[in-house]
Amino acid sequence: MLLENLSYVEVEAYLVEKDIILIPIGSVEQHSPYGLIGTDFITAEAIAREVGRRMDILVAPTITYGMSQHHSAFKGTVTLSPVTLINLVKDIINSLLNQGFRRIIFINGHGGNINAVKTAFEQLKYENKPGIYEIISWFLLPEIQEMERDIFEDKNGFHATPSEVSVTKFLRPEAFETKPKEKKKIEKPDGYFPLSGEEFKKLYPDGRMESAPWLAKEKYGKLIMEEAVRIIIERVKEIAKKKLF
Amino acid sequence: MLLENLSYVEVEAYLVEKDIILIPIGSVEQHSPYGLIGTDFITAEAIAREVGRRMDILVAPTITYGMSQHHSAFKGTVTLSPVTLINLVKDIINSLLNQGFRRIIFINGHGGNINAVKTAFEQLKYENKPGIYEIISWFLLPEIQEMERDIFEDKNGFHATPSEVSVTKFLRPEAFETKPKEKKKIEKPDGYFPLSGEEFKKLYPDGRMESAPWLAKEKYGKLIMEEAVRIIIERVKEIAKKKLF
Amino acid sequence: MLLENLSYVEVEAYLVEKDIILIPIGSVEQHSPYGLIGTDFITAEAIAREVGRRMDILVAPTITYGMSQHHSAFKGTVTLSPVTLINLVKDIINSLLNQGFRRIIFINGHGGNINAVKTAFEQLKYENKPGIYEIISWFLLPEIQEMERDIFEDKNGFHATPSEVSVTKFLRPEAFETKPKEKKKIEKPDGYFPLSGEEFKKLYPDGRMESAPWLAKEKYGKLIMEEAVRIIIERVKEIAKKKLF
Amino acid sequence: MLLENLSYVEVEAYLVEKDIILIPIGSVEQHSPYGLIGTDFITAEAIAREVGRRMDILVAPTITYGMSQHHSAFKGTVTLSPVTLINLVKDIINSLLNQGFRRIIFINGHGGNINAVKTAFEQLKYENKPGIYEIISWFLLPEIQEMERDIFEDKNGFHATPSEVSVTKFLRPEAFETKPKEKKKIEKPDGYFPLSGEEFKKLYPDGRMESAPWLAKEKYGKLIMEEAVRIIIERVKEIAKKKLF
Amino acid sequence: MLLENLSYVEVEAYLVEKDIILIPIGSVEQHSPYGLIGTDFITAEAIAREVGRRMDILVAPTITYGMSQHHSAFKGTVTLSPVTLINLVKDIINSLLNQGFRRIIFINGHGGNINAVKTAFEQLKYENKPGIYEIISWFLLPEIQEMERDIFEDKNGFHATPSEVSVTKFLRPEAFETKPKEKKKIEKPDGYFPLSGEEFKKLYPDGRMESAPWLAKEKYGKLIMEEAVRIIIERVKEIAKKKLF
Amino acid sequence: MLLENLSYVEVEAYLVEKDIILIPIGSVEQHSPYGLIGTDFITAEAIAREVGRRMDILVAPTITYGMSQHHSAFKGTVTLSPVTLINLVKDIINSLLNQGFRRIIFINGHGGNINAVKTAFEQLKYENKPGIYEIISWFLLPEIQEMERDIFEDKNGFHATPSEVSVTKFLRPEAFETKPKEKKKIEKPDGYFPLSGEEFKKLYPDGRMESAPWLAKEKYGKLIMEEAVRIIIERVKEIAKKKLF
Repeated sequence: MLLENLSYVEVEAYLVEKDIILIPIGSVEQHSPYGLIGTDFITAEAIAREVGRRMDILVAPTITYGMSQHHSAFKGTVTLSPVTLINLVKDIINSLLNQGFRRIIFINGHGGNINAVKTAFEQLKYENKPGIYEIISWFLLPEIQEMERDIFEDKNGFHATPSEVSVTKFLRPEAFETKPKEKKKIEKPDGYFPLSGEEFKKLYPDGRMESAPWLAKEKYGKLIMEEAVRIIIERVKEIAKKKLF
Repeated sequence: MLLENLSYVEVEAYLVEKDIILIPIGSVEQHSPYGLIGTDFITAEAIAREVGRRMDILVAPTITYGMSQHHSAFKGTVTLSPVTLINLVKDIINSLLNQGFRRIIFINGHGGNINAVKTAFEQLKYENKPGIYEIISWFLLPEIQEMERDIFEDKNGFHATPSEVSVTKFLRPEAFETKPKEKKKIEKPDGYFPLSGEEFKKLYPDGRMESAPWLAKEKYGKLIMEEAVRIIIERVKEIAKKKLF
Repeated sequence: MLLENLSYVEVEAYLVEKDIILIPIGSVEQHSPYGLIGTDFITAEAIAREVGRRMDILVAPTITYGMSQHHSAFKGTVTLSPVTLINLVKDIINSLLNQGFRRIIFINGHGGNINAVKTAFEQLKYENKPGIYEIISWFLLPEIQEMERDIFEDKNGFHATPSEVSVTKFLRPEAFETKPKEKKKIEKPDGYFPLSGEEFKKLYPDGRMESAPWLAKEKYGKLIMEEAVRIIIERVKEIAKKKLF
Repeated sequence: MLLENLSYVEVEAYLVEKDIILIPIGSVEQHSPYGLIGTDFITAEAIAREVGRRMDILVAPTITYGMSQHHSAFKGTVTLSPVTLINLVKDIINSLLNQGFRRIIFINGHGGNINAVKTAFEQLKYENKPGIYEIISWFLLPEIQEMERDIFEDKNGFHATPSEVSVTKFLRPEAFETKPKEKKKIEKPDGYFPLSGEEFKKLYPDGRMESAPWLAKEKYGKLIMEEAVRIIIERVKEIAKKKLF
Repeated sequence: MLLENLSYVEVEAYLVEKDIILIPIGSVEQHSPYGLIGTDFITAEAIAREVGRRMDILVAPTITYGMSQHHSAFKGTVTLSPVTLINLVKDIINSLLNQGFRRIIFINGHGGNINAVKTAFEQLKYENKPGIYEIISWFLLPEIQEMERDIFEDKNGFHATPSEVSVTKFLRPEAFETKPKEKKKIEKPDGYFPLSGEEFKKLYPDGRMESAPWLAKEKYGKLIMEEAVRIIIERVKEIAKKKLF
Repeated sequence: MLLENLSYVEVEAYLVEKDIILIPIGSVEQHSPYGLIGTDFITAEAIAREVGRRMDILVAPTITYGMSQHHSAFKGTVTLSPVTLINLVKDIINSLLNQGFRRIIFINGHGGNINAVKTAFEQLKYENKPGIYEIISWFLLPEIQEMERDIFEDKNGFHATPSEVSVTKFLRPEAFETKPKEKKKIEKPDGYFPLSGEEFKKLYPDGRMESAPWLAKEKYGKLIMEEAVRIIIERVKEIAKKKLF
């Protein structure tokens, strides 16, 4: 059930029964020479839509651009400032609250979005807005992280991970025809966070963070995505049952 | 050439030869009981991608949410505030300028975005940023408006037009299975702009603005989209040739 | 009827009968060596006051400073940022709405103000404010543009036009004693908009945009101003009759 | 020497010799039933222009709207928010600094502007901007306050004072034909500052603050204005001589 | 070594050798009838100062007010908005960076501050600022949480915990003379986060979150604080050794 | 009565009887080689707490950081931007108003805070907030300035004054063991205000402004503080008696 394909009359009917909506959010940022710039929103969108399909709940259009300042020294990265992202999220939630939605769940594909999105939630509560706001980052789910360790052992790393690359490979295999396949060394530099774009590039010169994206396979992607969908459905069910204050 | 499917290495190669990029921008807003909430970004995205495909130039991920405050009294509309949209556009352009892009063209599907996007352009120039920034609203192209008059005569109206509904029908025919088909009366109330959400709904109770969306047909959508693509290619070619100051 | 010359008691009496007010808005920016830095607010103010006088409606004090970033490389230009202009216009309208005004019409003398002023209108409607907000740019009225073609043929151009210079010459002849009279060449460079201050100066080195301000004459100014007043009165009458939502 | 009547070529010539400019700033606010809504900018403008004329220094267009929130419950008052005024002043000074001006003096007619204008000065210095920024409030000059005590004894009060009303009567006698002449009681309530619009009106129901505006006379206005001009010239001379850091 | 007790000459000497500084940050918010409104900054300040004393590193003045919107329905809570806290933290870090500090560590006593402080860090990096910025929340250290489980078993809860109350009891025993001692029931309602002030109060009517603050003892406070100091010293040592990018 | 040592239950009891609260505000800025970086908040805090103690009124936690941009070229100075300080003060007052406080008095130790704090008051009143907001700068009290002239004659100056240094010496004698004692020359340069950090340092190379901080003595500090407390108590009593509008 994609919001974008409905008319307002259909949304009215939906809101009679449900007050929940999923919003995919990702980023437009480098994922090493091996991965797609759209990785984070492509994965979040696919997972959110599959959850929505199975649960018969509404999925809003994807927020494609996120907070990716640390990747900004690599070509093709497009980042919002944290403050812009806060306001974007606030405006979207405010509209949905005005429509009658009360359980607003961001399905997130990118770690850099988390602080800003949560700050937006807090700013809305500071302004006394009702409702449950949640951000579920699929790649941080303990079950996913366990699966990643099972498949990729200590080579999943933290960015351009074989896990997320596998999911995009499953979703868009044709986009990988032009990507490299050779292995590289995995460095584990002693860094800190956050980093500016230039600092990040010094520390991680090809954009990977301790990861082996060449290990990505479509079949892993299918498995990982299925597991993410399964777990998120459980979480969403819990949220759907909560009493509102 | 979708930015989202590239790696930063591929963007580096692109930037050696070209400095132009298209960014589709739409809205998430009611389009009467006949049209899709995603109409504006669905059309802008499809047109921009076809232009990009034929011209071999890069298309950035779609900005799905736009400035739709006047539709906010209808369920399913999600609007950014004008000021948020200004900052969103500014941040995106700033990132692209830092990457080396210099000709940044928004392919726009929604009239409500125009003032804010242009104000963002001006704010960037106030901050002495280089480059050409352009917004091309496909539905305002004179050639498109002429074609609309030819096909729909005086029934195209200004919102939920049979023209834009035709394009989405061509692109997503399955989404129209649940939409109504009967004709309604076309009212031409004496209003003013801009209007708040509540004011708009009083003036246009079912969300249409003097339009007959039931006239939409896939074959018209194909024609209109093809014409929009053809004209925009001409415009983009002109921009690609301009000397930068 | 100038607001500045009334007491609040007189404004109370006015508001019993009318809810309309005119606000002149201009800019402080170079108008080539031939024209006055104050051209845009001087013309807007004179036209608005004459409209107000003939229609017996209130004229607020002039907003002298506007958005002129593209002229900022020429001495004497003073520009607001677009965002400041948005907030200025919002605050002024908010005050007038609180007083009971409902039809608020900006009589504008400068193209650079338009996007920001309209964005301010939209931001107010986003905040659910009542009323009709309009911006009438006298130099963009079709009737004025036709008159300009009749008088100046293809030499009116887009900035420091003989049309606006004629109006200021009619209003302040003494200010032209120190201005040059010789003709220059009219260049028509292939540019783009918006431009930063430095970019603009490279493209238009003496501040004219394809115009021949030396053709300005007091008698033309009188004619043009009279026509602008006449047309704007018609527009204002229409606005005064509109039903409020 | 009014900036508005010059061309940029004339400003270039001025800047070769001088780096000083005066900017009149006032407000659009009630001044009791006896005084003009434009009192504060009318007086500031007239004084600044006379200073400029005698000293042969440049006077910028008047900032007509100021910070008048405490008068907002009276019809005709139009107020900027303090934050908007800060940004307005910052933008204007930034433009003038870019042009080469270094001594920027606001000639102020309204007490409510002072904190915001000074905060703008501080924000600019926080941003490491060069130059001397000064605000001279003519009605707070000790010499003027002494003259007010001489003429009006304890009846000058703090708003809609016979002093400022006299100056406007001198400048615009015709505007007083419709104003009342009868005396009222002078109340001295025990209040506090700042006050909101509604609080102010409760404390000062006809808009006067302990003043007797009916005592205003053109001849006093002439005297007071002359004295203000004289003193401000002395101050401006001192500023013109200061060494810049 | 308290920054507040030094002169700039002494700070110059410090900066020759070190570039690290600790900044305690807390909140002013209710901590149930059993705990102190200042709990979070009192504990953060005491811990930071002890760390600074033992390590001979500088401690800046305490940021007493934090982001406590969820406690705002209880008297005495004073909260910043998240956006204000972001700007406060940004300004403080910017000043310290300009002075030459490069390792800036917030010692935090309040969970509500974390998202905003981290967003401030990210905004600074978005603006390409150098340095390591860290927030260490003493109550979230795994070693502290283990100690809490050892001492208070499942009764520590999430707010007004016996752990933090013990530390304040150790630091300010006299403040507890007027506080109650009786036990209450521990509720574990099924809530969500974030909550507005009113929502929080409905869920947690006396301000505790699943905690038994009556279990607090000075001797536990001494133990917990000592452990926090010990662990934070280790963390700070690691940060002090990191290579800057 | 320190807010930080109370529980919300105790604040509820207080608010039944009183609606007044004191908030100390200072700065973190150089005070020459002779004085403490914390001078302004240390003095404000001590004075406010003594006033609170004697009057049995509540004292909120100290706002340690203030607006000190002009001192920013000296190591150890940490400054908020004026705009951040405005928002900080607004948020704090808004919280206190929501709690039922109506007389909110800032006890100020730093001149640089005054414009921003007053602008915050005005912005709140622009937003129609109730209550009395006051800032009392102890060092600007006429009685204190007279005492300073009596003790230090013409050597008190304007920054790092022997008066404020005496008060800190009285409060924290141990902090002065490492400070110099020798006399320096007192310069009276012809400057202007405000100044940027670099400009200030050029004008006042060791951070003093026409002052002789070596004259500071504990006994003077005791006297001055006692007088400040005495006078402020009188002022606070007046405020406590005022009728609210």
